[in-house]
Amino acid sequence: MVKENNLGVTVGKQENFSEWYTQAIQKAELVEYTDVSGCLILRPGAYALWEELRTYFDKLIKRDGVKNAYFPLLIPEKLLNKEKEHVEGFSPEVAWVTHSGKTKLKERLAIRPTSETIMYEAYKKWIRSWKDLPLRLNQWCNIVRWEFKNPVPFLRTREFLWQEGHTVFATKEEAEKETYHILDFYEKVFEDLMAVPVLKGLKSEKEKFAGAVYTLSIETLFPNGKAIQAGTSHHLGQNFSKAFNIKFLDKNEKLQYGWQNSWGISTRSLGIMLAVHGDDKGIILPPKIAPNKVVIVPIYFKESETAVFNKAIEIKEKLTKYGPLLDCRADYRPGFKFNEWELKGIPLRIEIGPRDLEDNVAILVRRDTGEKIKVSVDAICKKTGEILHEIQDNLYAKAKEFLYSNIKEVKNFDEFEKGITQKKIVSAKWCGCIKCEENIKKKTDGAKSLNIPFDQPDIHGKCVACEKDAKYKAYFAKSY
Amino acid sequence: MVKENNLGVTVGKQENFSEWYTQAIQKAELVEYTDVSGCLILRPGAYALWEELRTYFDKLIKRDGVKNAYFPLLIPEKLLNKEKEHVEGFSPEVAWVTHSGKTKLKERLAIRPTSETIMYEAYKKWIRSWKDLPLRLNQWCNIVRWEFKNPVPFLRTREFLWQEGHTVFATKEEAEKETYHILDFYEKVFEDLMAVPVLKGLKSEKEKFAGAVYTLSIETLFPNGKAIQAGTSHHLGQNFSKAFNIKFLDKNEKLQYGWQNSWGISTRSLGIMLAVHGDDKGIILPPKIAPNKVVIVPIYFKESETAVFNKAIEIKEKLTKYGPLLDCRADYRPGFKFNEWELKGIPLRIEIGPRDLEDNVAILVRRDTGEKIKVSVDAICKKTGEILHEIQDNLYAKAKEFLYSNIKEVKNFDEFEKGITQKKIVSAKWCGCIKCEENIKKKTDGAKSLNIPFDQPDIHGKCVACEKDAKYKAYFAKSY
Repeated sequence: MVKENNLGVTVGKQENFSEWYTQAIQKAELVEYTDVSGCLILRPGAYALWEELRTYFDKLIKRDGVKNAYFPLLIPEKLLNKEKEHVEGFSPEVAWVTHSGKTKLKERLAIRPTSETIMYEAYKKWIRSWKDLPLRLNQWCNIVRWEFKNPVPFLRTREFLWQEGHTVFATKEEAEKETYHILDFYEKVFEDLMAVPVLKGLKSEKEKFAGAVYTLSIETLFPNGKAIQAGTSHHLGQNFSKAFNIKFLDKNEKLQYGWQNSWGISTRSLGIMLAVHGDDKGIILPPKIAPNKVVIVPIYFKESETAVFNKAIEIKEKLTKYGPLLDCRADYRPGFKFNEWELKGIPLRIEIGPRDLEDNVAILVRRDTGEKIKVSVDAICKKTGEILHEIQDNLYAKAKEFLYSNIKEVKNFDEFEKGITQKKIVSAKWCGCIKCEENIKKKTDGAKSLNIPFDQPDIHGKCVACEKDAKYKAYFAKSY
Repeated sequence: MVKENNLGVTVGKQENFSEWYTQAIQKAELVEYTDVSGCLILRPGAYALWEELRTYFDKLIKRDGVKNAYFPLLIPEKLLNKEKEHVEGFSPEVAWVTHSGKTKLKERLAIRPTSETIMYEAYKKWIRSWKDLPLRLNQWCNIVRWEFKNPVPFLRTREFLWQEGHTVFATKEEAEKETYHILDFYEKVFEDLMAVPVLKGLKSEKEKFAGAVYTLSIETLFPNGKAIQAGTSHHLGQNFSKAFNIKFLDKNEKLQYGWQNSWGISTRSLGIMLAVHGDDKGIILPPKIAPNKVVIVPIYFKESETAVFNKAIEIKEKLTKYGPLLDCRADYRPGFKFNEWELKGIPLRIEIGPRDLEDNVAILVRRDTGEKIKVSVDAICKKTGEILHEIQDNLYAKAKEFLYSNIKEVKNFDEFEKGITQKKIVSAKWCGCIKCEENIKKKTDGAKSLNIPFDQPDIHGKCVACEKDAKYKAYFAKSY
């Protein structure tokens, strides 16, 4: 009667994080592999999370004046090559369409690895005057990057879903303001919706987006001590507007190049959330993003089956706003069901059995702590709301404690290396140079800068890794 | 001051429909062409319509128990070839990925022309028992079919957006019931949301989907007398479940093949709606699908500018639920603005000028009839709602009158040919054979069967086009 994928995660999260992650994701029935390596199926459970994230972020940007659009999947090779740094950043990973039916195409077409080039070619046509600005478009779409590292569900896949915002402003100031503003939205998606704390900051010269003037990012820490980039907001300056000839007549009738940004988050976000919150029993969904925040499991005994079922229905109706599931499958034992919904990370389970009927109570079981709470059915809606809140807060607090307790201030390169070896995020005074970062990477067997926090103390003294003066404090870690 | 694209449509809809359509769509700023023929940009105005359609249909199917998921864009050639009829139907139009970066792929990958094959390969893994059924998944995604006919915005593009539902049932009866049920949803999307009347029926053997047992469709008529298929719902029987080995243990522990359906509508729907409702001034959006149902144009005169502006703001606030636009651009004349919003098809314009202030009234101007209605600002919300209703009903009634007045009952092949020449939909008794349909097509220079209505009279006598007995009445026309 028990299905194979319901046997539970067979390895501890601390014991072997990679194996835990892969098992937890698959046993929650979130993804399925296909014959094409790196191209995974997002099953309904995963896609529903993506829909929640999309709805949440879409509302934020639409209120802010951004409009959605859709640009073609296929980009002519010539177009992709227009911005030099940009194409160098992407060309090794581009999937090329060369034939239609039996016919060879005259020019091969790239499946979009990102859409700067195809979008900006159109922006050039649409923008004539300052009156056409700002132009702020976003698209929700699929992206293909043919990576060669091992695929990992959500975190590293050759096709993924994302949103990409691409904006043009009349002034540098307006553009730069938006770059920071959007980063705040990303922070909100992670911290408020997904209960994942993030570190905001500026990417180093070495780690910024190919073609950007600078990149802002949010970063966080995985349970295995690897850092991961969670979202980026790029100020492109006039790099692309010059390459794509995006010019406008300003109020003084002078021709100017536009100031541009681009910004994106992807299905990777979901992987980060799942990795951060899960436990040895499997994934845990933060209540705010869980489409079904509650599952009701009636516990049947023959003589009271109808009464219990009716009470379960009554509870379900009271909890409509939490998207309650009701598991009334007759041919599965309660223990099997508990296990299944724990594996799927439903934040709160409600058990109702014959003995509870007399007192008109139900047992609420928290997925995050396992705590059982007896609640009067009359008060169940209010109480459920409160407990879901507590779960959200608790997941966030735990993740925050983990993140910040793993940041280590270091004063010299010995401490730096030690911190990296201990799988910490290291905070150090730094010069910011590309060469210095390359050296750090070599010496530490792969540590990179994450970002440079916006709030900086007064900086004096030398760089932690070279002879130059330090410019700021930056975060370093080994990254996913 | 006037921008080129605001000069209005330069050709009448009756005079030259194709040219009218292309101009109306482009001057409404709905699409933009790119350097890749057939790959068009959906600008914010068009994508917002797609979002409305998606929200509307998504609600219908989710309530009905369908879940959304996402399957990969790229399908291995081997997989695509698994169902013979199916692959023959699509292979001339498949775009092939052959390289990643500089590396040639071992097996080339098709960009999905539809997702039966990649989805059913997974369904095989997920379905074991009758308890896993029905499995009803849908995805919203992009599709590529490398057609060679001239591209037309929305109606014939090489990349388009659609939804595809793919379901598996334990019994033929359940599957067939869904096929009809989903067709009713499509009818609702067209008739209720988009005010476009459609003809429901069964596709002929010749015109059904490659690989289906039968196909149901909705069809409608273009202003130029060409019919167009608007949506399809396919009963696949066990054709694919046998090819893909989708088997389940039924309640008697016997292995059975699943019964399957697939169904889809695409961005083509939007083109149909725009073609049906537009007039010589450009497109007309039915209020129900228009994200912005109202545009408020204050008419400024120097001495009363602030008062008029404040009144416009007051009106806007009263009309929040209709997504009102407020066009307070100072450097454009009212006539220019009227023209622009007419081109963009906004259902209702509200003018407010200095003289209206005294009486506390505003002028409502219907996009569909041009009628001007003076309305008290106090009653403007209620009145706007009523008029929007009337506009929706009027658009639907006009389109219905056009469709049904162009259906011609014919008794013999002479009348049949005459009807086709007169650009009518011809309703005729028919045998349904593939050969007969091929003959009809030849003799009429291209007429095809649209579909066979579900409500059939008693049929006696011969087929309109051959010596066989007639089986039913069917619709024929030249099609888009």
